[in-house]
Amino acid sequence: MTKHELLQQIKEKRSYLCVGLDTDLKKIPPHLKNYNDPVFEFNKQIIDATRDLCIAYKPNIAFYEALGSKGWQTLEKTIEYIGEEHFTIADAKRGDIGNTSAKYAEAFFKTMNFDAITVAPYMGEDSVTPFLKFENKWVILLALTSNTGSNDFQLMNENGEKLFERVIKKAQRWGNENNLMFVVGGTHPEQFADIRKLAPEYFFLVPGVGAQGGDLKTISQNGMNNDCGLIVNSSRDIIYASAGEDFAEAARNKALAVQKEMEILLSTIT
Amino acid sequence: MTKHELLQQIKEKRSYLCVGLDTDLKKIPPHLKNYNDPVFEFNKQIIDATRDLCIAYKPNIAFYEALGSKGWQTLEKTIEYIGEEHFTIADAKRGDIGNTSAKYAEAFFKTMNFDAITVAPYMGEDSVTPFLKFENKWVILLALTSNTGSNDFQLMNENGEKLFERVIKKAQRWGNENNLMFVVGGTHPEQFADIRKLAPEYFFLVPGVGAQGGDLKTISQNGMNNDCGLIVNSSRDIIYASAGEDFAEAARNKALAVQKEMEILLSTIT
Repeated sequence: MTKHELLQQIKEKRSYLCVGLDTDLKKIPPHLKNYNDPVFEFNKQIIDATRDLCIAYKPNIAFYEALGSKGWQTLEKTIEYIGEEHFTIADAKRGDIGNTSAKYAEAFFKTMNFDAITVAPYMGEDSVTPFLKFENKWVILLALTSNTGSNDFQLMNENGEKLFERVIKKAQRWGNENNLMFVVGGTHPEQFADIRKLAPEYFFLVPGVGAQGGDLKTISQNGMNNDCGLIVNSSRDIIYASAGEDFAEAARNKALAVQKEMEILLSTIT
Repeated sequence: MTKHELLQQIKEKRSYLCVGLDTDLKKIPPHLKNYNDPVFEFNKQIIDATRDLCIAYKPNIAFYEALGSKGWQTLEKTIEYIGEEHFTIADAKRGDIGNTSAKYAEAFFKTMNFDAITVAPYMGEDSVTPFLKFENKWVILLALTSNTGSNDFQLMNENGEKLFERVIKKAQRWGNENNLMFVVGGTHPEQFADIRKLAPEYFFLVPGVGAQGGDLKTISQNGMNNDCGLIVNSSRDIIYASAGEDFAEAARNKALAVQKEMEILLSTIT
């Protein structure tokens, strides 16, 4: 997907919501267990209930890998079911030496047809660039993550420059705002204005809003650029809004509430 | 596998060789294409040809993911075929927020029965500790990797301490020498003595010897501890020693030459 197509979706849907498909077999409603592939059935109903409210879906690859090769079949079916309209993000946190990152890129961009993949920067340039060679595909590089462990290494400071800041600066030599985004965790809302200055034209993928505690309004006011520039993810808050047979309807209601808030926040830039 | 069992293998086989199964469908000998699962057949013959010469096998997960859910079936068959004797490493470079790392741990330690997984440290403590909760399973944490991109962030320096050094120090608060190892790339042989001082009792997994240029003798002389403390991986040099029907025999010959060199190097500590 191109940046232009992504922006079109944001305008039409008045939303910058990404629904995270962290689908856990242990957490889905009991009545789905009768289906041949309960995880796929859950995803299908969540997707049908939220298509018009979100611009992106983000399957969390760990939840599918935990089910082995069957989980990968479910993932393949899910990505196909989502289709071309939405921006699809493989939340995979991959990154390895060049020839190996090239294989991961093949897995997520060719074997499956994801638009984007999250990548961990620790191994540097040649671990990231193989993903950037695919046309109209995106790297979403970890910068400042939403978890408590983000303090351990990401804030390391050399002469006033933090590690996550160095990641944001260096990566802009490898990619550009048409194939590269950054992960900036929603649990650091007060830092968004400073981080925005480091990459004014780039999209940020923002996890950690909802179950992890991030505040949508502060993040949006501090982090938006003229293009919106934010994709805000919510996973557990939406997909597990109800544990009963009404889970899809409950997910829709939650997503709708977020979309309504986003519509107001977007009105400040358009 | 316990540390004691790993040490027993090193003593009995007079080897600390790990064979990397970076099996690429495009690189395996043409006559294998007639098999139902050519990648598995290749792995099977490589494993049969090298079992007595190596202590570990390390499938590179990217190469299996590139083949989709079928690749995962091949991976599942491969890990089962290797069996219990060898130390098995999922070279996966995973790492995510706590609940997600727990799912990756489930994927590689329970759904599949790997002994160890490589983990990327960027996201810090809660991205690593879920893997450490499994008994007799191992985290192999990236410290200083073998690729050129290792210069980009791993050498970042705060008050004389480099990022990879901080990783090695901090992680020893999370795990211990019975469930934690570090990746130290073979392309930095001159640094092994200093790195060894940071973690005297820990095993290092050393990629980058062979195709990537690392020197076994220097690494061993600088990096060994009294327990050996090294697992040296070779992938392409061994498994692609021949592109013909004699590939397994050629792989054996390459592995045998490495094992002979290791036997001499081991004699200095036993």
